Amino acid sequence: MSGKKHAIGVDFGTESGRAVLVEVDTGREVATAIYPYRNGVIDESLPESGLRLDPDWALQDPADYVETFKQTIPAVLRQAGVSAEDVIGLGIDFTACTMMPTKKDGTPLCFLKEWRENPHAWVKLWKHHAAQPEADRINQVARERGEPWLNRYGGRISSEWFFSKALQILDEAPQVYAAADRLIEGADWVVWQLTGEEKRNSCTAGYKAIWSKRDGFPTNAYVRALDPRLERVIDEKMSRTIYPIGQRAGGLTARAAEWTGLKPGTAVAIANVDAHVSVPAATVTEPGRMVMIMGTSTCHMVLGAEMKEVPGMCGVVEDGIIPGLFGFEAGQSGVGDIFAWFVENAVPPEYHDEAKSRGLDLHKLLEEKAARLQPGESGLLAVDWWNGNRSVLVDVDLTGLLIGATLATEAPEIYRTLIEATAFGTRAIIESFEESNVAIRELVTTGGLPERNKLLMQIYADVTGREMKVAASKQAGALGSAMFGAVAAGKAAGGYDTIFEAAQKMARLKDEVYRPIAAHQRSYDLLYAEYKRLHDYFGRGENNVMKTLKRLKAEARAN
Amino acid sequence: MSGKKHAIGVDFGTESGRAVLVEVDTGREVATAIYPYRNGVIDESLPESGLRLDPDWALQDPADYVETFKQTIPAVLRQAGVSAEDVIGLGIDFTACTMMPTKKDGTPLCFLKEWRENPHAWVKLWKHHAAQPEADRINQVARERGEPWLNRYGGRISSEWFFSKALQILDEAPQVYAAADRLIEGADWVVWQLTGEEKRNSCTAGYKAIWSKRDGFPTNAYVRALDPRLERVIDEKMSRTIYPIGQRAGGLTARAAEWTGLKPGTAVAIANVDAHVSVPAATVTEPGRMVMIMGTSTCHMVLGAEMKEVPGMCGVVEDGIIPGLFGFEAGQSGVGDIFAWFVENAVPPEYHDEAKSRGLDLHKLLEEKAARLQPGESGLLAVDWWNGNRSVLVDVDLTGLLIGATLATEAPEIYRTLIEATAFGTRAIIESFEESNVAIRELVTTGGLPERNKLLMQIYADVTGREMKVAASKQAGALGSAMFGAVAAGKAAGGYDTIFEAAQKMARLKDEVYRPIAAHQRSYDLLYAEYKRLHDYFGRGENNVMKTLKRLKAEARAN
Repeated sequence: MSGKKHAIGVDFGTESGRAVLVEVDTGREVATAIYPYRNGVIDESLPESGLRLDPDWALQDPADYVETFKQTIPAVLRQAGVSAEDVIGLGIDFTACTMMPTKKDGTPLCFLKEWRENPHAWVKLWKHHAAQPEADRINQVARERGEPWLNRYGGRISSEWFFSKALQILDEAPQVYAAADRLIEGADWVVWQLTGEEKRNSCTAGYKAIWSKRDGFPTNAYVRALDPRLERVIDEKMSRTIYPIGQRAGGLTARAAEWTGLKPGTAVAIANVDAHVSVPAATVTEPGRMVMIMGTSTCHMVLGAEMKEVPGMCGVVEDGIIPGLFGFEAGQSGVGDIFAWFVENAVPPEYHDEAKSRGLDLHKLLEEKAARLQPGESGLLAVDWWNGNRSVLVDVDLTGLLIGATLATEAPEIYRTLIEATAFGTRAIIESFEESNVAIRELVTTGGLPERNKLLMQIYADVTGREMKVAASKQAGALGSAMFGAVAAGKAAGGYDTIFEAAQKMARLKDEVYRPIAAHQRSYDLLYAEYKRLHDYFGRGENNVMKTLKRLKAEARAN
Repeated sequence: MSGKKHAIGVDFGTESGRAVLVEVDTGREVATAIYPYRNGVIDESLPESGLRLDPDWALQDPADYVETFKQTIPAVLRQAGVSAEDVIGLGIDFTACTMMPTKKDGTPLCFLKEWRENPHAWVKLWKHHAAQPEADRINQVARERGEPWLNRYGGRISSEWFFSKALQILDEAPQVYAAADRLIEGADWVVWQLTGEEKRNSCTAGYKAIWSKRDGFPTNAYVRALDPRLERVIDEKMSRTIYPIGQRAGGLTARAAEWTGLKPGTAVAIANVDAHVSVPAATVTEPGRMVMIMGTSTCHMVLGAEMKEVPGMCGVVEDGIIPGLFGFEAGQSGVGDIFAWFVENAVPPEYHDEAKSRGLDLHKLLEEKAARLQPGESGLLAVDWWNGNRSVLVDVDLTGLLIGATLATEAPEIYRTLIEATAFGTRAIIESFEESNVAIRELVTTGGLPERNKLLMQIYADVTGREMKVAASKQAGALGSAMFGAVAAGKAAGGYDTIFEAAQKMARLKDEVYRPIAAHQRSYDLLYAEYKRLHDYFGRGENNVMKTLKRLKAEARAN
């Protein structure tokens, strides 16, 4: 007996992998299973050998990715009582750039006895931060040569990205570099494991490996200038054939069918990235509606019909989010993290006690008290750089600023001010896009913060002057992957032919909409003008006190 | 039998009066007695009638001043077993400007049944802040007329000062103004009560009533421009005869001898002000050594041989502190108050818990942890304007600023930064003096903070590059008054002929000296340069964001 058609999305996060089984015609999330990675984030010592890692390192074990398939997919089928025949497609999303060296057949070097004790043989996780010297070199050489692609990335390539990590392997472990037939994103590697075919996706290639549909990768001459030994890395260890997201990568191999309990040949989508796959899951497949994934930090994504170089964005990639469109990405490096810092480090006991006695989370209590204030009533203004500025200044050395405190200033006033500051940061990003003719009409949010903090949502609506909507799914990454799985299967198999159709049927918003309140907007326009002036004064070189303080701090700690 | 000679100092504070009996030859404080004013600070309703007062009002009852003499002087004699014959002189110091209307014979209007229910008949305490409209008028008219004395007061007359309060009486209660034969400082009134002679002192006249030895009071033409009815106030209700501090005001009357148990004719000194009388009690009677009275706020006093107009000081008065010298006064309106704000409003429970479990004051715990940091190590910088800026910007609408926060910033780092900020504020004052050729070689402190916080003392030494010393007496006001009492008695009676001699014999410093540490000075020079840049940027009109925020706050609260 054949029932409703389903697709599966598998979301590979930092600490665990998650599968969600989704009804294709409705987008209903029928079952979820999570596998916490056995080796988690490897940031102190290597498994088995116990070899110590330097402080900025962060690795993963590719065995945990395979185990995610083995554990979670059979579990969701079992939970839902859905048969393998009724699963038409499978999509995955991954953290990025999370990359590893493998042999020609896809075997990770760290699976091989001879390389297992070398940390460079393992997966370098997105938040591996030990490749800063390599990133500095990449940027310096690019600036010296006037490489045109640098502007697509806000003028700076991150230490987290693909070539920084690849170059670190070459610098520190040339023998691992030499032994690696392939250097590949985890996203593409897991799809390879499912289908037996190495097909690289346009999203990670574009946002993390300096690729573009029109210009391809940086020239070999540039790569040679970085290091002559690296010259042929793209041709020999990567691939110049990049597949747009939204395509079918292949069908499940017999081995993968055995791992998962699915049918051999089940459609598998080209790999995708967790943030980017959330965009269609938040109903957005067209220009003009920015998706904000709001948690400890915020990732902003918006689509455009044309290529634009927006100052200070993280990247723009054709086919990077939705096939046929340019995907623009920007970000704020501290959002929920700033509120968490405040709650942990700057709230006196009376509020902790009140929250406890009323059985409230402390954030909730502060939100309740902060919500009683009018815009401007605190007399405070903050600049939201507790964790640097990702967009539009692209400067990790900027720091937080609070101005306006008096002897009467109280914790809920500061809490509200910090929320406002992050909203001003988002407005600065929106204005940078609009000044570059990338329109942004409304904001669709997903992630932990919008669920929890209504005051925050209203403040963002008031500050940006735009409606704030909320994606219905609490696991937008996995839902988006399942949607791409349904597209990989195609309409003939009971799925969809395009992500646009899939989004119409499978993605939904919550009913609640936060609309700007005119009186609040007027106050926030005045406050934002002050924010912007401080933003430019401290962020654009007129007063470099934040950097001076960081330098003095580093010197004091070195003594 | 005649024993050692003694002098008595009576210090009239905000909440109580205090007498200290001091050995004239050694300065040893033999006995202390305190009388808490029965009516305290009258800021809600008048005694007896219960008439409600407006929020900015603060009054006192002159009966409490007389009662201070009656209660405390007999008490110290009794405690010490010292006979009245051995008390050669008496001095007093008072808060200022604390003023009242009286009849010609000195009877306060509030003692008279017909005026007792009028709040303007009572003493207006120094912190009575309801005369701001009058102060605004005084400043505006002075600026319009280009009055030369305005520069002696940093360009602004305070709402706390004599003419602001006098003008408020005229504005709001012209019948009280008309009934008042005299308008007089509490300081001078209590000396009048002791001696039967109205003799006004140069300290309050100079610092609070716009008098100077060379130019006298503002012209009648100026006073008429304020209000024609006020034109003859100086001639009719005040006095143009001003006595330099350090002189004998007279001898105790029989009535005052009865109140106190002292001998009739005992020498009484010209009145003085609590802060200013502390200067010789801190051993300072010469130029070059600044006295800092450090508590909730800080008062800075330094002597000079010549008249200088120092930008942003509170006032300069010839004979104002030490006869024959110019006394310069400056101030910081928030110091201990800022640390108290932080401890009450921004320290998370873990520190409260640790302090409690170790039986420590929370300030002490934070000081201990902050002392482990090197200068610059926090990466933070603050500007100390939580309560506005008294010197050198003279602007109550400036507010606090904290810059450099990251997700790793912790409470002890902020605590240290706030201490550093107040030290930078003192350095700005010192530099303003030195730029005007008023030399400051070392700093002598008194008040509550220097006793309690060694880290603060070291930071001030490091930031200012000057030795920090501490006055030995914990009641410098009363000791200084006793010293002036011994001078009023004169050498022939067993006292001293000058305050210089008295200071040599009766005033002492503690042995501890805080000396600048060269490496810390180098770091703080760099941080101070950044502080000064922010100070000027936000304080001198280039960026008026603090005022804009205050305005928006006021508007939001009005809605």
